[in-house]
Amino acid sequence: MTHAGLFLTFEGIDGSGKSTQARMLAEHLQGSGHEVVLTREPGGSPGAEEIRSLVLEGDPDRWSAETEILLFTAARRDHLERTIEPALAAGKIVICDRFADSTRMYQGLSRGDLRGLVDQLHSLMIGREPDMTMLIDMDPDTGLSRAKGRQGTEERFEDFGPALQQQMRAGFLALADEFSDRFRVVDGNRDMDSVAQDVTDIVMAALR
Amino acid sequence: MTHAGLFLTFEGIDGSGKSTQARMLAEHLQGSGHEVVLTREPGGSPGAEEIRSLVLEGDPDRWSAETEILLFTAARRDHLERTIEPALAAGKIVICDRFADSTRMYQGLSRGDLRGLVDQLHSLMIGREPDMTMLIDMDPDTGLSRAKGRQGTEERFEDFGPALQQQMRAGFLALADEFSDRFRVVDGNRDMDSVAQDVTDIVMAALR
Repeated sequence: MTHAGLFLTFEGIDGSGKSTQARMLAEHLQGSGHEVVLTREPGGSPGAEEIRSLVLEGDPDRWSAETEILLFTAARRDHLERTIEPALAAGKIVICDRFADSTRMYQGLSRGDLRGLVDQLHSLMIGREPDMTMLIDMDPDTGLSRAKGRQGTEERFEDFGPALQQQMRAGFLALADEFSDRFRVVDGNRDMDSVAQDVTDIVMAALR
Repeated sequence: MTHAGLFLTFEGIDGSGKSTQARMLAEHLQGSGHEVVLTREPGGSPGAEEIRSLVLEGDPDRWSAETEILLFTAARRDHLERTIEPALAAGKIVICDRFADSTRMYQGLSRGDLRGLVDQLHSLMIGREPDMTMLIDMDPDTGLSRAKGRQGTEERFEDFGPALQQQMRAGFLALADEFSDRFRVVDGNRDMDSVAQDVTDIVMAALR
């Protein structure tokens, strides 16, 4: 028996706990007997991981916003072809930490107003949207202190400061409104088990 | 004094002698006192050279045609922003060995019919066309034996065989017809000095 899988993405500002929630959901679903592929962007396939390194390492100004969007789109196309679509075709549940909505937000808001360009490039080269997107919504002050507690190679994406994080939060909420058919907003200002319970309830309802 | 520069590209099948002609023209123009930037694609700026390595090295099937087009377009955008446009703004003559026309041909003909996609992506992310494009037209049998006499990392682009090279030649000639305002077709089936003389005459006439 073959059946279409389910494509779930997690979005939210840095430190919102979305990566933890993605992992917890994957473990829960696997525990319930589902076949799950947990992945993340940028990256998620061998080629896309190489492109990720090219974008995220080195001088933050080495790429213009437009070149960066092209590189992220190339990585997404590879990730979609090599990881996401084969898993969905095999009937698996794909859980992806960040997808095109992050490009809409981060390239749109932090590097000039390129949302129109991002959307045109997306519809030309990617097309696919997730079946469901969990927005882990969180107060930026809480999110920022969590993000700063971590180490990583992606500091430039997390070093936005409180004002920009407020903008990002508002941007994600606006996106949830724009794509209300697939977005589910979960209050992330709580302990992770409470958040995970909400996420699980929403996804299990969708799977029934 | 600032004045707009001139953006010249060379196109043609592998082994047509276009790279030699680009270099000979650059030397001639420099000898006449012009400021010239000689560059080539894919590559031509530090970032674009890194993307070039990602595309051309490794398993030929590691990227889909669509991902490859995105990577070439990212490299072109970087090359344009960092090398070509600053030189043109400084009034220099830019001579580029291959540009968007090569993507129209190679991704269009050799990896499925993606010409429409290539054109849409070009108008969205690049926009710019050369002021003049020299097509060094050559009989593929001659071109192929020349290309095989060389060594390089780009064998997969040169290992097309006679039938595909015939298609490529016809494709470039059709492109010259489509963009007849900027294309100049030069007969490359002659000794390189005769070809160079024709190229020089055409460019010197354009510069007057």
